[in-house]
Amino acid sequence: MTEFELIERIFATLQHDTPNAHDIEKGIGDDAAITRVPAGARLVSCIDTLVQGRHFAADWDSVEALAFAIGYKSVAVNVSDIAAMGASAHSILLALALPQRLANTAWLETFAKGLFHACQQFGVILIGGDTTRHDQLVISISAQGFVNAPATPVYRSGAQAGDTLYVSGTLGDASYALQHPDTKVGQKLAHRLHTPTPRAALGNALGQLPASAMIDISDGLYQDLKHICSASHVYLRIDVEHLPVSSALSEIAFAERLTHQLTGGDDYELTFTLAPSLSPPDTVTPVHAIGQVLSTEALAALPFVPETPQPILFYQGQPITSERPAPFTTLPTLDGYQHFTG
Amino acid sequence: MTEFELIERIFATLQHDTPNAHDIEKGIGDDAAITRVPAGARLVSCIDTLVQGRHFAADWDSVEALAFAIGYKSVAVNVSDIAAMGASAHSILLALALPQRLANTAWLETFAKGLFHACQQFGVILIGGDTTRHDQLVISISAQGFVNAPATPVYRSGAQAGDTLYVSGTLGDASYALQHPDTKVGQKLAHRLHTPTPRAALGNALGQLPASAMIDISDGLYQDLKHICSASHVYLRIDVEHLPVSSALSEIAFAERLTHQLTGGDDYELTFTLAPSLSPPDTVTPVHAIGQVLSTEALAALPFVPETPQPILFYQGQPITSERPAPFTTLPTLDGYQHFTG
Repeated sequence: MTEFELIERIFATLQHDTPNAHDIEKGIGDDAAITRVPAGARLVSCIDTLVQGRHFAADWDSVEALAFAIGYKSVAVNVSDIAAMGASAHSILLALALPQRLANTAWLETFAKGLFHACQQFGVILIGGDTTRHDQLVISISAQGFVNAPATPVYRSGAQAGDTLYVSGTLGDASYALQHPDTKVGQKLAHRLHTPTPRAALGNALGQLPASAMIDISDGLYQDLKHICSASHVYLRIDVEHLPVSSALSEIAFAERLTHQLTGGDDYELTFTLAPSLSPPDTVTPVHAIGQVLSTEALAALPFVPETPQPILFYQGQPITSERPAPFTTLPTLDGYQHFTG
Repeated sequence: MTEFELIERIFATLQHDTPNAHDIEKGIGDDAAITRVPAGARLVSCIDTLVQGRHFAADWDSVEALAFAIGYKSVAVNVSDIAAMGASAHSILLALALPQRLANTAWLETFAKGLFHACQQFGVILIGGDTTRHDQLVISISAQGFVNAPATPVYRSGAQAGDTLYVSGTLGDASYALQHPDTKVGQKLAHRLHTPTPRAALGNALGQLPASAMIDISDGLYQDLKHICSASHVYLRIDVEHLPVSSALSEIAFAERLTHQLTGGDDYELTFTLAPSLSPPDTVTPVHAIGQVLSTEALAALPFVPETPQPILFYQGQPITSERPAPFTTLPTLDGYQHFTG
């Protein structure tokens, strides 16, 4: 048996049974996979890459220790992208650039267990892949899902003046854990960094409602909401005192944790806008209102309106202007996002 | 504009118009792409990775010089996988792990031109992607296509005793060009290595016929036919004197070129089996009969039958046995494939 046949066998053996399996006419083991498409469904598809030294540690000891988490997370980030369209992920393809050092049964089985744990959690089936040798670990996963009528896909571009802005879960946890791995709070939050929970059921429910605009938070709330602002041509109000915080992160000083909540990446929460007549769907995932799409009148009342549509931070009903007093000195400026070290 | 916005702009600007664009409700620029699916169609999907130093040269001068070919080939290998299912590729997602050294407009534009040249040739549209920084160039492309009824997907597993074995185009060209880049023949054949022609129209026509089994040749004819043998539980006869050869490669001595034809990778031709009552479809791609799926009687007449279903080489109607005389001493042995340097 060649090494690549061994890998194929490990993956074929460890895959759980999933309800989606009956849609797969041909999975792993041919030139491509064949999937039966539900009548009237639209296809949702995305691709995401995790690179050693970028999305997880560069050193081999960490990569070996994190095999389960890396497998899990490579699926989770794609499930999150599909959820952000108001759809459910259905199946995935795995492209694995694998270093010699990790090409052993122990590492591959632990990686596969993490990958399939995420698959089982989110009802996804592995239908194919490609393995190649490389100096470092690079994992690309492509996910496909379906939007079944009457649900419609939710884009970044549909936000309307007066819509309420929401976010799921809590913010800033993964970012804090990444920057402070050895502190007590950082350790409490490590699972949020390594095994994030994409909001699959919530995203799907928001496609049925539907939400007017949605994005998943991978680069930080402020940065990702800029995409909704530019795609929808709207200004958003973010009420910073309403940003949801985990009990662990609430132990951190207000200014510091606010920075993580607004600009920290890797949360994989959903942020979305709803028409004022709609309420968020009732799923197990908590959802908080954190602002609004500004109307023309609300914009006219501001002391300054930036040329480019963007999120505007408010505290206790007042915009945080360029004179930003402490504790707001490290927050994004009104006229454009700047990455800062907090 | 960030570097990644620049990349997105280069790709958005250089994309040609394609007929498939009208099926794309949302392409580049959201969390995932949305594709309208033809009624009654099955979805075909695959992923393939090209890695610097494996699928193309490791040195930076070559990677810079080959920008167009690398872009082209990364699409072509996926189009070939979809064609091998009897389907047509429709759209692709690109995951690009990009070194600093190549993150400049000149390289990216040339790469994108190669990629879109292949897209235009084969009627494919780029609908999304993900770019990340990495030390070396790693490109994963995921392709999706459709099988529209009454066509059916063609698997590796359907070959039947008595079926005729065919191959498209010519064999061994890419392998010879890879091993002898500085010879006159190698230079004549360089285009077959760098810009291979996946047999998109032929593959699609074979899904409509349909063929009984098919695979594309990426690892060499003999090795890839082993997959058809084991999936279909059949033994194949390959008549080595019927293997199609290009006029350039025909200048090379019989034994050497036969080795390239049987075991050289990167041809991206299609090899397939047809019921004896069927003729190959009439497309621009030449197709040659090169053997047959052996019947029980034909197997019983052999001097030796290997335990595992596999291809068996014949010359002038006689099996090439383990006493293989010159010029056959370098060919695969009856009882299993061995990579050899020829």
